[in-house]
Amino acid sequence: MGKTRLEAFSDGVIAIIITIMVLELKVPQGSDWQSLQELLPVFLSYVLSFIYLGIYWNNHHHMLHTVQRVSGGVLWANLHLLFWLSLVPFVTGWMGENHFAALPTSLYGVVLLMAALAYWILQNCIISTSGGRYALLAKAVGRDRKGKISPLMYAVAIPAAFWSQWLAGALYVDVAVMWLVPDRRIERVIAE
Amino acid sequence: MGKTRLEAFSDGVIAIIITIMVLELKVPQGSDWQSLQELLPVFLSYVLSFIYLGIYWNNHHHMLHTVQRVSGGVLWANLHLLFWLSLVPFVTGWMGENHFAALPTSLYGVVLLMAALAYWILQNCIISTSGGRYALLAKAVGRDRKGKISPLMYAVAIPAAFWSQWLAGALYVDVAVMWLVPDRRIERVIAE
Amino acid sequence: MGKTRLEAFSDGVIAIIITIMVLELKVPQGSDWQSLQELLPVFLSYVLSFIYLGIYWNNHHHMLHTVQRVSGGVLWANLHLLFWLSLVPFVTGWMGENHFAALPTSLYGVVLLMAALAYWILQNCIISTSGGRYALLAKAVGRDRKGKISPLMYAVAIPAAFWSQWLAGALYVDVAVMWLVPDRRIERVIAE
Amino acid sequence: MGKTRLEAFSDGVIAIIITIMVLELKVPQGSDWQSLQELLPVFLSYVLSFIYLGIYWNNHHHMLHTVQRVSGGVLWANLHLLFWLSLVPFVTGWMGENHFAALPTSLYGVVLLMAALAYWILQNCIISTSGGRYALLAKAVGRDRKGKISPLMYAVAIPAAFWSQWLAGALYVDVAVMWLVPDRRIERVIAE
Repeated sequence: MGKTRLEAFSDGVIAIIITIMVLELKVPQGSDWQSLQELLPVFLSYVLSFIYLGIYWNNHHHMLHTVQRVSGGVLWANLHLLFWLSLVPFVTGWMGENHFAALPTSLYGVVLLMAALAYWILQNCIISTSGGRYALLAKAVGRDRKGKISPLMYAVAIPAAFWSQWLAGALYVDVAVMWLVPDRRIERVIAE
Repeated sequence: MGKTRLEAFSDGVIAIIITIMVLELKVPQGSDWQSLQELLPVFLSYVLSFIYLGIYWNNHHHMLHTVQRVSGGVLWANLHLLFWLSLVPFVTGWMGENHFAALPTSLYGVVLLMAALAYWILQNCIISTSGGRYALLAKAVGRDRKGKISPLMYAVAIPAAFWSQWLAGALYVDVAVMWLVPDRRIERVIAE
Repeated sequence: MGKTRLEAFSDGVIAIIITIMVLELKVPQGSDWQSLQELLPVFLSYVLSFIYLGIYWNNHHHMLHTVQRVSGGVLWANLHLLFWLSLVPFVTGWMGENHFAALPTSLYGVVLLMAALAYWILQNCIISTSGGRYALLAKAVGRDRKGKISPLMYAVAIPAAFWSQWLAGALYVDVAVMWLVPDRRIERVIAE
Repeated sequence: MGKTRLEAFSDGVIAIIITIMVLELKVPQGSDWQSLQELLPVFLSYVLSFIYLGIYWNNHHHMLHTVQRVSGGVLWANLHLLFWLSLVPFVTGWMGENHFAALPTSLYGVVLLMAALAYWILQNCIISTSGGRYALLAKAVGRDRKGKISPLMYAVAIPAAFWSQWLAGALYVDVAVMWLVPDRRIERVIAE
């Protein structure tokens, strides 16, 4: 089975997730600065989630670039990743509308952690079903420092949110900044 | 007429259905565990419907893979399937927000049953318009046990929901689990 | 300029329009038959609009099939058509929620009429910019009876809605039924 | 990396933005002329934003047409543009629902200005990463009068909205009209 429809479907779902997230930025009643300021936390959480979804789309793009054919297992591992990403608008809205309260900020980390695990499962699924053909991908992933540090940082942020939501927020921002540099690992190994 | 636009349109519609369904997970007012727990039935029905739509996308993917050209009849049979799938977010939200009450749980089964019939019509449409070219598909479908058992299970669940909604729910979960294994029938017959 | 992106963009917009329309089917508070019955007019108007959008997608599909390259004028004529189609969910919801009251039912016809005009402009745009290359399309369209009768029927339905909304509704259903047969004109002329 | 997925993703996001914007046209309670008239400002701002998004899609289409491969920087510059475009439905709804009040009308200009800057960054990104290969694009852009005048007009409209929102509105309409002619610069230079 070809990968074209898998890419098109994933692009569609991520494009919709990234765009319906803006519906949480509800048009306020008033037309003064006050009503705009009240939207600031929702706006900030929107920016953060937009960047995260952009990172996932970018890395997904890079990873599938190395793949030629997909198995049934890869299709489901991909749907599993999309499931967790589809929950991002909900936790983004909940965190923003509650001004980064403890529980929503912690749950935001849970969804990011589950998405990171789903991405890792998808990666392994591609490598294992390829029967050694994606040794390049396996090699690139082997030294994957960012992919190992991110879940650790989420795992720290999830309980930390109950102690200080700003620390949790700072960890989420840190991970996003770390990933903003696109996934050059694969590019580099292919170039070799 | 080529099948590319049919696939792209179907992917688009299914991607949007699967994603707007998450809008039924409405961001709660409070930020405590209580408000999160109240969302649990909506979340569970979301998970179930996400899996069902994933199954439809997967099987649709497999079935169209065997097709080269589509007729006007196939276009409309496909739109008919998308119509019933487009009602899934509505019944999912209604069932979840009413904590699996009898009527919504029964209606959920009606929509699943109609979608299953629409899928069966689409399948027959492809086989009949192909003038024997898709004998492989016909052969694969001939022994189609899962495709025959699923509508029966929905037909049992629809009245059963008024007696015990948990029995109906268990039947929906059973069908989903049964289908989670992708449609290997077609893969197998092609391999022969 | 190629037509691939034009087709993909149009498919995307029509897929989203057809799917967000279901959001007007708002999940009711109660879980009894009563709450379901109240949704019947919205559901019926949803079915009608779903068929109309399916017809537009099908015919758009057929028409662009004959085209190889698109000009700037065609791009804008296409966006103009998409603009009127994008208003379909609004008039569908308004008509359904007001149980086919006179003004919403009339406005529904206005949007259908404008969409029909936009389709006709797009068709002429494709024929004129092709410099005679689409003589086949021009020939097919020349005898276009359905394309000439539909706007007339909308033009009758728009004022008729203020006298009898059921007459207007019957006219909308008639046009939809008339078009359900896909646009065989183009298929036939190409076959010759 | 190929440009296909970049185009598909951008098309998807712009198609969704343009379509969910219509959700701000909320179905009114009543079914009389009065309720329709109250929607007029929201409708007018919808028409304006639909044209702006159409312009962006058209020009994006033209610009990427000259590109063969995309770098990581181009991917992010493109996401940056999509971010600002994703805020268009919010400012459109806010401006329309407040009948073109000063602050929302000014903020509308801010989002347009940021989108224009993002487009300019994306353009430069494509030119610089191409290592001179897109000298044609650079040449076309060099004489880019419309691209230089638009941000100036937005920059005038942003403070002007607090003095006269109609002047600001007129400036937005002027820019849209100016751009409605598709980006012939690139077509012309390629033709040479």
